[in-house]
Amino acid sequence: MTEERRLIMLPGPTNVPDRVMRAMLKPIINHRGPEFEALHDSITDNLKYVFETKQDAFVLTTSGTGAVECAVSNIINPGDKVIVPVFGVFSQRLEEKIARRGGKPVEIPVNWGEAPTAEQIEQTVREEKNVKAVAVVYNETSTGVTVRDLPHIGMVTQENNVLLLVDAVSILGGDHLPVDNWNIDLCVAGSQKCLACPPGLGVISVSEKAWETIGKVTTRTYYFDLVSIRDYASRKETPFTPALPLFYALDEALKMIREEGLQTRFKRHEKCAKAFYGAFEALNLLPYPLLNVRSNTVISINVPSGVDGAKARQIMKERYKVEIAGGMGKIRELIFRIGCMGIVSEAETLVTIGALENALNDLNHKVKIGAGTEAARQIFH
Amino acid sequence: MTEERRLIMLPGPTNVPDRVMRAMLKPIINHRGPEFEALHDSITDNLKYVFETKQDAFVLTTSGTGAVECAVSNIINPGDKVIVPVFGVFSQRLEEKIARRGGKPVEIPVNWGEAPTAEQIEQTVREEKNVKAVAVVYNETSTGVTVRDLPHIGMVTQENNVLLLVDAVSILGGDHLPVDNWNIDLCVAGSQKCLACPPGLGVISVSEKAWETIGKVTTRTYYFDLVSIRDYASRKETPFTPALPLFYALDEALKMIREEGLQTRFKRHEKCAKAFYGAFEALNLLPYPLLNVRSNTVISINVPSGVDGAKARQIMKERYKVEIAGGMGKIRELIFRIGCMGIVSEAETLVTIGALENALNDLNHKVKIGAGTEAARQIFH
Repeated sequence: MTEERRLIMLPGPTNVPDRVMRAMLKPIINHRGPEFEALHDSITDNLKYVFETKQDAFVLTTSGTGAVECAVSNIINPGDKVIVPVFGVFSQRLEEKIARRGGKPVEIPVNWGEAPTAEQIEQTVREEKNVKAVAVVYNETSTGVTVRDLPHIGMVTQENNVLLLVDAVSILGGDHLPVDNWNIDLCVAGSQKCLACPPGLGVISVSEKAWETIGKVTTRTYYFDLVSIRDYASRKETPFTPALPLFYALDEALKMIREEGLQTRFKRHEKCAKAFYGAFEALNLLPYPLLNVRSNTVISINVPSGVDGAKARQIMKERYKVEIAGGMGKIRELIFRIGCMGIVSEAETLVTIGALENALNDLNHKVKIGAGTEAARQIFH
Repeated sequence: MTEERRLIMLPGPTNVPDRVMRAMLKPIINHRGPEFEALHDSITDNLKYVFETKQDAFVLTTSGTGAVECAVSNIINPGDKVIVPVFGVFSQRLEEKIARRGGKPVEIPVNWGEAPTAEQIEQTVREEKNVKAVAVVYNETSTGVTVRDLPHIGMVTQENNVLLLVDAVSILGGDHLPVDNWNIDLCVAGSQKCLACPPGLGVISVSEKAWETIGKVTTRTYYFDLVSIRDYASRKETPFTPALPLFYALDEALKMIREEGLQTRFKRHEKCAKAFYGAFEALNLLPYPLLNVRSNTVISINVPSGVDGAKARQIMKERYKVEIAGGMGKIRELIFRIGCMGIVSEAETLVTIGALENALNDLNHKVKIGAGTEAARQIFH
């Protein structure tokens, strides 16, 4: 296994600052003692800052997928109707999690590369009877689409007294997501995306309105029981042994977010995303998503016809030391996906664009070397 | 939060060797690429060595509790009868996990400090009809009891065509547990105990016989679906983003176990446990468990009457820099528990005994300073 450090421009995991990595080396401590309580306080306070919530927020020793399952299994009883727009791999997975829990997903099919709208949600809520919740993937990591209508969806669920569950795994900390303002009842994310922490933790926010439903759910799994998690959190503990080194890392990563400031951080992500899209336009590379739903955290572009996408990525990785991803599911070979997350800045953006220009030329897909970089430069300056 | 390093003699998490801690700093890599495949190979090979199995073994991004829930939820359909001896907090939790899954736990009540026997299990299997599985906590972390009859319990389940599920969270890697030889169908453990790795990962072995049942289970949670985990493992991946730094750490910890050799490691744990028990006898401190079921990995002794256990532990921690645990559940204030796990050696054993001697004297419970240490010395030499 190589120890070589490459630039990781995957849509997660992403580059982790050394300061965050080193935090993992702090001493192993008793998770039932005062040192852990202090760590728990610090993380909880900063996590609420990131979720922009005055309600509850918790850290779970699980990947983002487990955190989504936690949200689903705490509000859905068998037979409950949940509306779920499906427009990529992660919204398909969300639908499957609801079904496995025994819920009845009401699917709103949306073309891949597009996003569901508040109108669609509103219409479906009205047509269906007794809808328990709407479950939305805010940022479809598989297509690079952000649901820009999420604030309006929150108004719809609020007006109709329906819960809103949001999978924000690949966007929390990288784009606007004021959980309280937008009436989001359960919001989940992973540590290894825009929070710039190593993988292995999930985070979740829970609204007062969600707690009413959670209290009435008939059975909950043992590991993901939010009632128990809240009880332990009230005494600054976790119900089960926490992944301590990752808690240290998350604490440091959240401190860095607070130091930078959320709004500054969002603007940085947006600027880098604009530079990517500008560069790709200059290189005649087409974004996969529609114009008004393009993500600032996962940049998704079509592989030019005649180019072997996997080969291009391999060249980028091995020759130019920049790792990006291909597609998932039915568009696996059709797109490139670039993570624009966490510590991303002008430097990483330019290096990635340059590496792609070079790799495409190596494969005889001629693009003007420097054209993408120049377009990006103009956006940064 | 102090950065001071103390000797961690808790029944988990335990002291982690620097070599294992440093492994967490290896580069963040793509979990869908060749570097991760190599890591996956290395971990799987050494994990099978530790489980002493030629069947399947997997790593889960979850704490030990989640790994136990994974085992339970993959073999139990609602209504299935599962025999579970209850003799401490963790076997109570195991019973609750079975009930939450919809299974029907058939409890064998056992006095705390004692262990269930193969005869009890056999009798209950015969009395009850249609038993699906027997679920046993091999090492009750809450009482310091090891189920020494486990090999015979495995014979009973084998003869009666019943599955055997074993919670080995606080013992795998510290005492004998040849999964194939003992006919164990599902065996789970946590990373932060005898494997001497930081907390945050669970490990699980799965027998061929277990797979037959798993294939017939009606619903499984999404995150803990062993069928999906096996599918991904066959291509050297995990279904969801793994806790990468902890995978690196586990890889290193397992390598250290292989270098030492399992049998040597078991003997080291046994020797240290004998030294602890010998020292406590010399100090007139009574072990909590019955003689023949005392654990080699969790040493549990009664707090001497007239001594405030919490205060004694606080003095040990603050003045003598050795951290041990109190009890759990109904015996919370009645016992001390000492982790004898992972990298434990003569040095840690003697320091811990010395710290306890000192703390007891500080609280005016007079014991002869050096008496425990001397008894332990004789066992080591």
